[in-house]
Amino acid sequence: METDRRGRPRLVASRRPGRSARDEILDAAAELFTTVGYSATSTRRIADSVGIRQASLYHHFAAKDDILDALLAGTVDASVELAAELLAEDGPMAPRLHTLVVADTAQLCSGTWNLGTLYLLPDLRVERFAAFHRRRDSLRSHYGELSRAVIAEHDGPADADDLPFRLVEAVINRRSDDGTCPPDHPWTTAEAALRVLGCARGLSRMRAQTARRLGLSPE
Amino acid sequence: METDRRGRPRLVASRRPGRSARDEILDAAAELFTTVGYSATSTRRIADSVGIRQASLYHHFAAKDDILDALLAGTVDASVELAAELLAEDGPMAPRLHTLVVADTAQLCSGTWNLGTLYLLPDLRVERFAAFHRRRDSLRSHYGELSRAVIAEHDGPADADDLPFRLVEAVINRRSDDGTCPPDHPWTTAEAALRVLGCARGLSRMRAQTARRLGLSPE
Repeated sequence: METDRRGRPRLVASRRPGRSARDEILDAAAELFTTVGYSATSTRRIADSVGIRQASLYHHFAAKDDILDALLAGTVDASVELAAELLAEDGPMAPRLHTLVVADTAQLCSGTWNLGTLYLLPDLRVERFAAFHRRRDSLRSHYGELSRAVIAEHDGPADADDLPFRLVEAVINRRSDDGTCPPDHPWTTAEAALRVLGCARGLSRMRAQTARRLGLSPE
Repeated sequence: METDRRGRPRLVASRRPGRSARDEILDAAAELFTTVGYSATSTRRIADSVGIRQASLYHHFAAKDDILDALLAGTVDASVELAAELLAEDGPMAPRLHTLVVADTAQLCSGTWNLGTLYLLPDLRVERFAAFHRRRDSLRSHYGELSRAVIAEHDGPADADDLPFRLVEAVINRRSDDGTCPPDHPWTTAEAALRVLGCARGLSRMRAQTARRLGLSPE
């Protein structure tokens, strides 16, 4: 029987991915929130699904909304940091936007559970999630800044500056419809994001640069 | 006091848009589903919000999922018909896709309640909503057919054929974030849908054609 240092002894052996009880709670909650629904899921049910007592769950998260908040943060944090890093660099913007779109789309495609489906929940429109909204707003505004620069560089349509962000998040709907995304979807999305802004040339060079930077193989 | 021919006398005077009790129930349910949540809303609460007895509500809808199904159908039916009509016509595909995107985006922008936010609910993944899913799938496949033809006409990227459909539905997320959409959003989206497929020319002529066909003024 495994033990969880911060809680009680486990009722059953671990059956979830994750190195710690905290990660297992997050995985179980992500599954239940995306398949059963957030409001229909109790912390009791999450604890049962991990195989720990409800009291042990409370050692890690004081309430259900703290679990949701941690899951949501995981969908934006790395991309906000990458976007800020890319914005601070020199050179043309188009290859930088290309890199951000590939990384962010790949991240949204890759989690076991399609957490982006939770963005539209009415439950999120409360003060408790203000920090998450601010974080996602900065991601959106970084996309906007990169996009406006690409539009200026390529004489593209001025009103398209919100669309690259939308194309990336559309992967959430694609996963919801098809259960999965094609492996080349991040690359397809990056090319589309640039075309929407009036940039339809130099794409194969950008693919190579992005692949090098992110340590991926271009599809 | 108004009376509802198919139900009991109303408890209060009508306070909702809609010519019939049925329309008022749909409006109240749309508000509650999108602001409180589908699973958190009872038929009792919908009836209260309309100002009718719960028994009267059951004259119009046998269950809560029948109300949701009717609301969802309203978000796709007109666009499926328009898409089928456009596919049956002659001539180049790009202007036809342009028209579909403008009409469909305008429709998703225009309802009082942002019903598309309900598409991702886990509650929808049951047999009860199979007819809605088939309907939305045909809309998606009509978009795919139009998009593949535009890609062929313009030597565009072959893997972009699902993206126009996604760009249109992204208006749902935009409304959710900003509460509203800019008035020119249908036109912005139509231009983006064509650019994604490799078609970046002739857009002002398409705008004029679409405006004429739909009886709109191009933004």
